[in-house]
Amino acid sequence: MEFSINFNNIIGIVAGIITTSALVPQALKIYRTKSARDVSLTMFIFMAVGITLWFVYGVLIKEIPVILANSVSLILIFSIIFMKIRYG
Amino acid sequence: MEFSINFNNIIGIVAGIITTSALVPQALKIYRTKSARDVSLTMFIFMAVGITLWFVYGVLIKEIPVILANSVSLILIFSIIFMKIRYG
Repeated sequence: MEFSINFNNIIGIVAGIITTSALVPQALKIYRTKSARDVSLTMFIFMAVGITLWFVYGVLIKEIPVILANSVSLILIFSIIFMKIRYG
Repeated sequence: MEFSINFNNIIGIVAGIITTSALVPQALKIYRTKSARDVSLTMFIFMAVGITLWFVYGVLIKEIPVILANSVSLILIFSIIFMKIRYG
């Protein structure tokens, strides 16, 4: 498997950094308030399944941004699911 | 610009359908409860910016699943942002 970095990759990497970073304030908000009542568990379970598939897709099309962004997103999504179940 | 459908596309399309669908229960939950207190506005603003870039990335690498999934996701994200601002 061979990878190369080009302009498209840079756009994808920036996109990945932003969408992955987006999960951080949600995770922090739940952690700080110990409340996740308005957060949809269904949303984050679907996200976990879908992001796992995006990761597989990234490996198939050999696109580093897709692989990296989705790996980190998965970790954040599981932390949100864990807190949602814990704090409700 | 030329597009073709192959196995990778199918994985990407399924991934896109799932991650995009994930936003629907969150949007519905806010609509039904008229409450979005625990939902992070910062998360969805970052998502809107990031998903716009993923859309651009999809156009650059000519991957239909990336283009389609992110178009629909953007619409759902803007509806969530609108309701978050309205219902708080």
